Amino acid sequence: MSKLFLVGAGPGDKNLLAPKARQAIAASSDLVAYGLYLELLADVCAHKQHHDLPLGEEIGRARLALDLAAAGKTTALISSGDIGIYAMATLVFELLDQQLQGQAEHPEWLAVDIEVIPGISAMQAGASRVGAILGHDFCTVSLSDLLTPWETIVKRIHSAGSGDFVISFYNPVSKKRDWQLNHARDILLQYRPATTPVLLGRQLTREDESIRILTLGELDARDVDMFTLVSVGNSESRHIVNGSQEWIYTPRGYSKKL
Amino acid sequence: MSKLFLVGAGPGDKNLLAPKARQAIAASSDLVAYGLYLELLADVCAHKQHHDLPLGEEIGRARLALDLAAAGKTTALISSGDIGIYAMATLVFELLDQQLQGQAEHPEWLAVDIEVIPGISAMQAGASRVGAILGHDFCTVSLSDLLTPWETIVKRIHSAGSGDFVISFYNPVSKKRDWQLNHARDILLQYRPATTPVLLGRQLTREDESIRILTLGELDARDVDMFTLVSVGNSESRHIVNGSQEWIYTPRGYSKKL
Repeated sequence: MSKLFLVGAGPGDKNLLAPKARQAIAASSDLVAYGLYLELLADVCAHKQHHDLPLGEEIGRARLALDLAAAGKTTALISSGDIGIYAMATLVFELLDQQLQGQAEHPEWLAVDIEVIPGISAMQAGASRVGAILGHDFCTVSLSDLLTPWETIVKRIHSAGSGDFVISFYNPVSKKRDWQLNHARDILLQYRPATTPVLLGRQLTREDESIRILTLGELDARDVDMFTLVSVGNSESRHIVNGSQEWIYTPRGYSKKL
Repeated sequence: MSKLFLVGAGPGDKNLLAPKARQAIAASSDLVAYGLYLELLADVCAHKQHHDLPLGEEIGRARLALDLAAAGKTTALISSGDIGIYAMATLVFELLDQQLQGQAEHPEWLAVDIEVIPGISAMQAGASRVGAILGHDFCTVSLSDLLTPWETIVKRIHSAGSGDFVISFYNPVSKKRDWQLNHARDILLQYRPATTPVLLGRQLTREDESIRILTLGELDARDVDMFTLVSVGNSESRHIVNGSQEWIYTPRGYSKKL
């Protein structure tokens, strides 16, 4: 049976790539990914057929991966982070679903054996670099309105605010989208204090990583680019300073017992 | 400087343990963890001093880890999954915070160099086993009311419902808590159809793993124990069947483009 691995390659640091992901790449003859990720994983990906499609061609990448696997080539479709979180996995299943409903012309896709391998997502890498901001109930919201109506996104930010969830914003800005993040900040300020700690984690775990801790009141889209993760604490999150080390953590409520 | 690693050991499968976590354990002389996790990682943890405290003694475990590191022993405090997600990391920072506020008598803790290493959490392992249920905005809610007031938990479930987030319930039941999950289900049924797909993932990625896909209407606490992750799709999540393979995915909205 032909095989397609959907592989989460983690945030960037090769030491955060699971052995299982490395094994799947090793077992594959063909790799489909956005080129940057293959560079980050350089040695793992050597001596493979690379299929490098640009950002924005997600559908083409998912189709190509299914086509290659259906043609008998063991294939790995690779996303950074967790391939199941704002990444390529769901699109592969959406294509399969189309075929199952008879809306596509690729019955050969249905014979592909698919295995998903999770990876460490940006919010987790970010949290680890500043302590434990994800220590209690949290949510993720993508600020990209290319595929999701902005009204739906706004509704989710309000819900995250009313539920006092820690929030990680994925796709906070892009070259063409610059106003959503400040709008999201203003919604959250209706629910939690301007002093709420915020993490900006850029190029997390990579050579040019930068980490910045600020407050919700100070959050500004001008300080954020498409390589930045934005995590906002809940109303109880704490920013603490111990000499040269700074941390954000979200308590679970042990203080009652301490 | 004395060193304390806070290590996320992943869901159970050693091939999902990041090399960085393995290296941290290798560099440590002392390991602090609930015993079961050390067993799962057996060979990685050989020839170390194990400090095995029972479930429920989280505060004692965090204190012991800080004490050992402060005494000069390179120490790894280990949680399964991601140590930053419903696990031990936040408690360590809560203790540090107490000391910084002068409410503890352990100034030596402040000299400990702390490094957090993230891991793959149960929701990610579960999602990978059934496709891509976390494919769009999601949240996590712990159903344990030992530390969080039940009213806060109820508010969060309502918010998750109104925001149409995919929801993963951590700590869905325990030996002493059996009614919260059905209550949570009834709240969600006010917001999304009874046909919404649900994943029950028990002992994920371990030898005795079991996976069950059912609907929100069928969800019942009697089918769930403390080793089970419960993930509930959003109103658009799809359960598809391809021969002997079954998947759940949550679309991101590419169908407009397909």
